[in-house]
Amino acid sequence: MNASAGLRDALAGIFAAGAYSVDPAETLVYGYDNSRRQAAPDAVVFPTAHDEVVALVAACRRLGVPIVARGRGTNTTGATVPVAGGVVVSFERMNRIVEIDPANRLAVVEPGVLNGALQAALAPHGFFWPPDPTSSPYCTIGGNLACNSAGPRAVKYGAPRENTLGLRAVAGTGEDFRCGYRTTKGATGYDLTRLLIGAEGTLALITEATLKLTPLPGARRLLRATYTTIQSAALAVSRIMAQPVVPCALEFLDDEALRLARAHGGDAIPVAGAMLLIEADGEPDTLAASVDAIARAARGEGLIELVAANDAAEADALWAARKALSPALRSIAPMKINEDVVVPVSRVPELIGGLKAISARHAIPIVNFGHAGNGNIHVNLLYRPEDAAQAAAAPDCLAAVFDLVLALGGTLSGEHGIGLVKREFLPRALDATSLALMRRIKAQFDPDGLLNPGKLLPD
Amino acid sequence: MNASAGLRDALAGIFAAGAYSVDPAETLVYGYDNSRRQAAPDAVVFPTAHDEVVALVAACRRLGVPIVARGRGTNTTGATVPVAGGVVVSFERMNRIVEIDPANRLAVVEPGVLNGALQAALAPHGFFWPPDPTSSPYCTIGGNLACNSAGPRAVKYGAPRENTLGLRAVAGTGEDFRCGYRTTKGATGYDLTRLLIGAEGTLALITEATLKLTPLPGARRLLRATYTTIQSAALAVSRIMAQPVVPCALEFLDDEALRLARAHGGDAIPVAGAMLLIEADGEPDTLAASVDAIARAARGEGLIELVAANDAAEADALWAARKALSPALRSIAPMKINEDVVVPVSRVPELIGGLKAISARHAIPIVNFGHAGNGNIHVNLLYRPEDAAQAAAAPDCLAAVFDLVLALGGTLSGEHGIGLVKREFLPRALDATSLALMRRIKAQFDPDGLLNPGKLLPD
Repeated sequence: MNASAGLRDALAGIFAAGAYSVDPAETLVYGYDNSRRQAAPDAVVFPTAHDEVVALVAACRRLGVPIVARGRGTNTTGATVPVAGGVVVSFERMNRIVEIDPANRLAVVEPGVLNGALQAALAPHGFFWPPDPTSSPYCTIGGNLACNSAGPRAVKYGAPRENTLGLRAVAGTGEDFRCGYRTTKGATGYDLTRLLIGAEGTLALITEATLKLTPLPGARRLLRATYTTIQSAALAVSRIMAQPVVPCALEFLDDEALRLARAHGGDAIPVAGAMLLIEADGEPDTLAASVDAIARAARGEGLIELVAANDAAEADALWAARKALSPALRSIAPMKINEDVVVPVSRVPELIGGLKAISARHAIPIVNFGHAGNGNIHVNLLYRPEDAAQAAAAPDCLAAVFDLVLALGGTLSGEHGIGLVKREFLPRALDATSLALMRRIKAQFDPDGLLNPGKLLPD
Repeated sequence: MNASAGLRDALAGIFAAGAYSVDPAETLVYGYDNSRRQAAPDAVVFPTAHDEVVALVAACRRLGVPIVARGRGTNTTGATVPVAGGVVVSFERMNRIVEIDPANRLAVVEPGVLNGALQAALAPHGFFWPPDPTSSPYCTIGGNLACNSAGPRAVKYGAPRENTLGLRAVAGTGEDFRCGYRTTKGATGYDLTRLLIGAEGTLALITEATLKLTPLPGARRLLRATYTTIQSAALAVSRIMAQPVVPCALEFLDDEALRLARAHGGDAIPVAGAMLLIEADGEPDTLAASVDAIARAARGEGLIELVAANDAAEADALWAARKALSPALRSIAPMKINEDVVVPVSRVPELIGGLKAISARHAIPIVNFGHAGNGNIHVNLLYRPEDAAQAAAAPDCLAAVFDLVLALGGTLSGEHGIGLVKREFLPRALDATSLALMRRIKAQFDPDGLLNPGKLLPD
């Protein structure tokens, strides 16, 4: 696709040379994301200020050009693929930490700030921002907000919706606004802040966020628990979450995931039917009691071994192996289907059992790991597209996974969002009225349907 | 007002005798709330099931009759006063606790369940639901959700928006829907759950809520800190909230509030320039360390005395005196204006200083107390309507309070909501685009404007 003369002129009037491109050779790289889907944008722009975004949306609306907001494209759902062409707005240069206010436990950031960079800036003040996707060194706060992306710590500290106080944004109408508060309580009108979080850039472009900060715990300890079977590990998850001490991470790896992790992490990763990584945090003089409570719950039928990481280096090695799983799976199965379904914690054992049965029935290997403390399991269907039988079975296999999840009282996505790849399944998860209300809300923010068309809501 | 024949017929077709009334002598009592505003409804209904609410909204829409959802009317903003007549829907008989699911840390309740009844039912399971308005023994979960009502514990555990997983509701169109999840993570479409919470019944009637539960702490300790001046107490609030251990309540009482509390609580309440009630919770073997950390921060210039309640009875007496403040103020000043403004915690000293100046300038006594840990101060303007000068000064005095709050980065309401009495001030707190988006969202849920007309959004 090529930018029209009108679009070229409009962009030249808003952005300095070097802050936008209509050259297909340059824009190509902004046409795909971690979903491996791809489409060609007409242009990519690199705003450095809120007012440029306002001017851009106004111009695009006048010209009828789609607008796709983009952080660093680490999402797995195709949420930033410009399937209808138009302008990709890369926020990579709008990356200032505007303010860190420890007294009020908040930080104000532009959307392009990297999650990891924010954490590094907050640490000297004794705070952190709880959402920590596996991609935190190279994903942006704007992307985290767009997808309500969480990570391991959400089990104790919540996702972006629980950790964001307010936003500045530009709606698809071109109108800009502020919503939310600089306070931790507020009852002044409808909650537009949470409405924008998780909306995947379909309602408005976020240009600034006021984030709620949490004090860094003084100490942390990582436990590694291995079990003879996946079921015994899943039952331990239920026991841990039914007692009062909440771990700050409760990760699950099945036998296949363990084999992959061992390839990355070496001997720190044991051979077993399944493993839990359980992290507790707290103040140094109280941590031992918390660890004891969690350890008691982790013990039970099928436990092989429960050991604490001896030092930070061993804990880091365990975490590195866990975090390497997603890219490792990609390398062995380029066409993996990676879902992040979520079920009530007590149903995790049934989910895991059901997934094994679905895998066997469709002859497609399924590897499972993820944030078990939230019931949020990353389900990876590994199929070889060159295997005609597997390729034919994959869609039914995926549909069976979603049917199982919904039957267990769960939902399609815990933290990845819907994007391009899951939107046709949305009517299975939401009733017709909810879906209609979402469409009508969308039309108020973006009457011309220019913001991230083809995403989240089905046609 | 009188119900039309059409409305009478419709109600008789939906509700059993005794489950609705059109008799003005009976409906009168459903025409006012704790705001002391009053209006006459045409009818009051007492649904016992979701389907009755669906049928009711359909009938009212057909007849063009307003609908006002009501818990127990403990709100102070006139949110449940039927200013346009119509049907008051009292949820007092729709009060079943449908399910308590400790393994998944959730409870499913009908809207008429009393907050205190829910807490009592949860305690044997080792859980509680954090929102705890002062009126908890006689306010409903539905009302808490409608107003995003919080209470003292919100400083550590959040308000309803942070403690609700999902809802069932009936929109003003008559369509019913479910939104949210039975899981603690979810990224499947727009967040309708948080949109309904705090919407004061203007978007939909909530007929069921899935609430997120928190484990009851094993121990709790209450500290009473007195200070020579209001400023020194306000500075202590800032210090407490800037260190990592979060109290589960951090309440502030100024000198006038203390005098009133002493009248209720007797010698347990000291004479001082100001007092903080600071509660810490945690596990029994770790609580002492938390209390020490908080106590260190509470100490500083102006501290008179810092003492822990000796036992549960003494703690209860202190809390009872704090909780008696709002009704006590009403008895001495029937026309008090009670606001629940909120500012960033570090600005509380400036807020308190500014309020003293405003009080002096307008010659209207102002008594302040409230949830200082969230910056949420209950500001009570005590004026005598028979004093012509005071009555004339009251509106300007109130406007000056709001201007001060907004200048300090705060907002109009932390937990009471907007209702009838604050809606004309909303355009001071929200920008025009936000307000327009809220109106457009309202029109999607309630195109005929039948749900709680005259509330929250200004005309």
